[in-house]
Amino acid sequence: MTTTRERPVTDRTGLLTDRYELTMLDSWVRDGSAENAAVFEVFARRLPEGRRYGVLAGLGRLLPLVESFTYDADEVAWLQEQGVIGEQTASYLRKFRFRGDIDAYPEGDLYFPGSPVLTVRGTLGECVVLETLVLSVLNHDTAIASAAARMVTAAEGRPLIEMGGRRTHEQAAVATARAAYLAGFASTSNLAAGRRYGIPTVGTAAHAFTLAHESEEAAFRSQVEALGVGTTLLVDTYDTAEGIRTAVRVAGTGLGAVRIDSGDLADEAARARALLDELGATSTRIVATSDLDEFVITALADAPIDGYGVGTRVATGSGHPTASMVYKLVAVSDTVDGPLRPVSKKSKDKVSLGGHKTAWREYDAAGLLVRESFTVPGDPAPAGARPVQVPVMRGGAIVHRPGIEEVRAFTAAALRSLPAEALSVAAGAPYLTVTHAPTEEESTMSTPTRALIVVDVQNDFVEGGSLGVTGGRDVATRISEHLATHAGDYAVIAASRDWHHAPVDGETNSGHFAAPGEEPDYVSTWPVHCVSDGPGSDYAPELVTDAVTHHVRKGQGVPAYSAFEGVTDDGSALADVLRAAGVTDVEISGIATDYCVRATALDARREGFAVRLLDGLHAGVAPETSEAAVREMAEAGVEV
Amino acid sequence: MTTTRERPVTDRTGLLTDRYELTMLDSWVRDGSAENAAVFEVFARRLPEGRRYGVLAGLGRLLPLVESFTYDADEVAWLQEQGVIGEQTASYLRKFRFRGDIDAYPEGDLYFPGSPVLTVRGTLGECVVLETLVLSVLNHDTAIASAAARMVTAAEGRPLIEMGGRRTHEQAAVATARAAYLAGFASTSNLAAGRRYGIPTVGTAAHAFTLAHESEEAAFRSQVEALGVGTTLLVDTYDTAEGIRTAVRVAGTGLGAVRIDSGDLADEAARARALLDELGATSTRIVATSDLDEFVITALADAPIDGYGVGTRVATGSGHPTASMVYKLVAVSDTVDGPLRPVSKKSKDKVSLGGHKTAWREYDAAGLLVRESFTVPGDPAPAGARPVQVPVMRGGAIVHRPGIEEVRAFTAAALRSLPAEALSVAAGAPYLTVTHAPTEEESTMSTPTRALIVVDVQNDFVEGGSLGVTGGRDVATRISEHLATHAGDYAVIAASRDWHHAPVDGETNSGHFAAPGEEPDYVSTWPVHCVSDGPGSDYAPELVTDAVTHHVRKGQGVPAYSAFEGVTDDGSALADVLRAAGVTDVEISGIATDYCVRATALDARREGFAVRLLDGLHAGVAPETSEAAVREMAEAGVEV
Repeated sequence: MTTTRERPVTDRTGLLTDRYELTMLDSWVRDGSAENAAVFEVFARRLPEGRRYGVLAGLGRLLPLVESFTYDADEVAWLQEQGVIGEQTASYLRKFRFRGDIDAYPEGDLYFPGSPVLTVRGTLGECVVLETLVLSVLNHDTAIASAAARMVTAAEGRPLIEMGGRRTHEQAAVATARAAYLAGFASTSNLAAGRRYGIPTVGTAAHAFTLAHESEEAAFRSQVEALGVGTTLLVDTYDTAEGIRTAVRVAGTGLGAVRIDSGDLADEAARARALLDELGATSTRIVATSDLDEFVITALADAPIDGYGVGTRVATGSGHPTASMVYKLVAVSDTVDGPLRPVSKKSKDKVSLGGHKTAWREYDAAGLLVRESFTVPGDPAPAGARPVQVPVMRGGAIVHRPGIEEVRAFTAAALRSLPAEALSVAAGAPYLTVTHAPTEEESTMSTPTRALIVVDVQNDFVEGGSLGVTGGRDVATRISEHLATHAGDYAVIAASRDWHHAPVDGETNSGHFAAPGEEPDYVSTWPVHCVSDGPGSDYAPELVTDAVTHHVRKGQGVPAYSAFEGVTDDGSALADVLRAAGVTDVEISGIATDYCVRATALDARREGFAVRLLDGLHAGVAPETSEAAVREMAEAGVEV
Repeated sequence: MTTTRERPVTDRTGLLTDRYELTMLDSWVRDGSAENAAVFEVFARRLPEGRRYGVLAGLGRLLPLVESFTYDADEVAWLQEQGVIGEQTASYLRKFRFRGDIDAYPEGDLYFPGSPVLTVRGTLGECVVLETLVLSVLNHDTAIASAAARMVTAAEGRPLIEMGGRRTHEQAAVATARAAYLAGFASTSNLAAGRRYGIPTVGTAAHAFTLAHESEEAAFRSQVEALGVGTTLLVDTYDTAEGIRTAVRVAGTGLGAVRIDSGDLADEAARARALLDELGATSTRIVATSDLDEFVITALADAPIDGYGVGTRVATGSGHPTASMVYKLVAVSDTVDGPLRPVSKKSKDKVSLGGHKTAWREYDAAGLLVRESFTVPGDPAPAGARPVQVPVMRGGAIVHRPGIEEVRAFTAAALRSLPAEALSVAAGAPYLTVTHAPTEEESTMSTPTRALIVVDVQNDFVEGGSLGVTGGRDVATRISEHLATHAGDYAVIAASRDWHHAPVDGETNSGHFAAPGEEPDYVSTWPVHCVSDGPGSDYAPELVTDAVTHHVRKGQGVPAYSAFEGVTDDGSALADVLRAAGVTDVEISGIATDYCVRATALDARREGFAVRLLDGLHAGVAPETSEAAVREMAEAGVEV
């Protein structure tokens, strides 16, 4: 009750648990079901607002804590005294240790909404009691690593120092240093993290150091004597320009670095660089600290800053201090030897898909991640996909022990599997949403993640148009029928139109129309078609456009085959619209298979979407070129 | 480097430190100044955006950690090996323990921008190394307690359960439970906090419990058998209404409580209450959990909810997971026995006032906190003020050991010293800003915290007006001169105008004007004056109003003497305007001393501001009544 009566911290972690875990255990020990088989899964229903990916962290800390998840006799007696457990459960806990299996995404891997990042299998009793510990460690460390990875990307190779320990719980500070380091930070100020995990530590002096000396010059002399001229001098205690002059006077032009911790950092850095250069200290680096995060670092990209120190914002997850992962029972047996049955709850707004999930990933030829899906027992493995989870604990013993440097390298590689736009700090939808592999419609999320693109179903491209394609009107009708029954399955339905300048005063839309008096070659020059706001550019009347969510126009003054070259009514690029809507899978229909449909499908793959060409909902100019286009799409990974 | 090579957690806290603390120490040990005297101070430059007060927490955890701030031989050897310290400092650290003094605000007390919540005195060496540990503990625990206190106020007496452990670092979870409890939460789910600090723990079952049973009914039966009918059943796993019917069928109408963890909680609670009542379970309580915070709890005030469980938002400080406290050197001696000299840095945007500060508080007759100020050595103690800090450590030994219940009661009392509007969850400026007592102008903050109110300097109240006051035009001129040189000192300059309805159709502004045909009594009835938009209501031409930030009109249809009865152009009350601007001190000028100036000054005191009547800048109707008014103001605490 008082500060002196506090019990010392022990290595045992059994009490780092919510009371309800043991209340449930008590009931299951009484009725015998504690020994039934169970599977629990850790996942996040969503990423923090605006984040496009998360970085899983904490696994290396968690596994030893699971091994230490035991109770001593005093703790068990206290639990009984408090009425949490009865005598039977007391016996159970006195000899408790986790003897089950854990599979997990490797530490440092990416995760997305629905990713089953950790799966615990064992008896119902031994699995249920781990919930609090598992979530505490993963939610904290993952929040830090996910924010830190964005800062690392924003820094574009310049080193980052983690120095947030003064802003968070004293033990969370050590975990923060570890999570930031594995996400790509170069070092930490935290000595315990240096000693515990072998992370490089850095640090020179605070303002107090300068203040405690009789003058700034005396402080700098003292620091340089102790640490050499390669040290970093904090120059903004009194007047930054004067501080820099003093620093160079004391250390010489070989001074390692100056640190600026206040003011407008872009201005201060520019002035500091100019002054250092003027003083001949051209190789002295500038380190900036003071309320930095991924957004400020991005804004400072052009400032002459050579390294960053990040404190508060990395230690607090840059606005998202927890990762909102949950630990859910997904399968359980009703007897000790009985079969596992999938379970899921139906609470409003918290629907879970039951069953033990196995996660799979697919990558494109360039190594970019294009899809994450899961299977449940009985599903076939998705073709061409790699499993994501690895065994990390077997029979209660750790079987996965990468060093921190290995985890850090793995994280860097995982980040390289994302396209540049997903790595940007700009807000966006999750880059991927995890879907159930065998039935692509069925997602763990309630919102659809598919889009339909209807390419150029316009009067000029159907029978009777200036570039009429045989079968075009039929295709328009069939697309309308498809939309009548499936519109609700799509997050986005985009219809594109060719939209060219009128051929007045020799306008050819950059050579796309054959020049006046010349014959089109039907390869790169064409008859006049789809003149903006003319009858030829209208949608064909057979196409019902009520359900279209985005109208895309392309080719205003230039040739444009792919819908991804166009813009929506508000000027957005199609790829951005799709991503903002959380789209992961794109289906393609329209005209013509061998030109604009082909170009749109290939661009959709390049943008990282899973792409499918809808059978019967497209028509081509000529059979040979259409067949060749379909082959080419298939080779690029389009499902045809 | 690997998970297995991690060193076990020890009770020693010496490495929970940023490297620069030891780098600085190393330099001071080498040059001997480590033994000079020093004073460090902990304070926050600001509160989180929109917060009106903070609650200091963590002191009871911190002091034992300071006692344990030592290094073992291996740790010292590691520090040498890492190049952090040399041999001299290694000897220093091997026998290090803190032997200095600490004074602090009692744990659970309120704090405001600039409050010196903790003062560390000792040698420069022993004080500097504590920075990281002190800030980690206070920033974390204070962030939690400050958010928790707002939730407690919002709950209006209904009990709150802290259940956020799964959302934060596993050790931070224990500290979170402690901080929430001292701020007024009723209990926690965290067993380690229960065992370590004696906090009541609660918990029954998660959704997994229901899912693992063959039916919801079986789950409820099992729980009721184990915990009795007084337990809380979680009823929303499948269908809430069905869950409630099942719960009452199983437990009977004596069921303790049902818990709802999803959906629109107001709707769900209303439906649950109606159904429970219909089933005869009229005394069964409803507990709500699911993304609650102080704002949601406020919005649910009218819902039939009997208790709340709060998780993520309390563990993450409700949007502000750290308290932004800093640890600054404020005084140091230049020799071991030398006198302390105040120090302060001049970094842009981080200016600190040097010198060892003593904090003082003043309360009004109702016990409401009205002022917090500080003195530095040599200043007289402010009259009628109480010191805030208490000794908590002397010679390195803890001398302050309140039990957690004592801290909790102290916090509740501290919260009662705030007026209702400061306790509201609505965003606002800090209720107080701490000022330097002897020179009220000099604040630790760079923004002014004073306001000037210019009362009714209008044509009708100066010579020649319908209620002309002798000396009114002179006062107007002197106020203009004052503003010409002092406008920049004020956060708000408000000018009020009497603004009455025209006396048409017998309009008397509720009897404020003498009725038609009757003589005014010059006490409660008056000649027609200050008719809205008429020449008499204009500011007197001698008053230069360029610097006026807020124009206040009052008396539209009613008598109104005090400027606090009026509204600004956008309809705001003057008191709200002043608080939103962070104003703590109000200066009063204008006409007439014995009526509207008097009423304004008294209202300003009632609203909790420090008030000063500006000499020479006010004029009254009659000498006797003016003198009486000044006496009355002085008695109410106005500086005259």
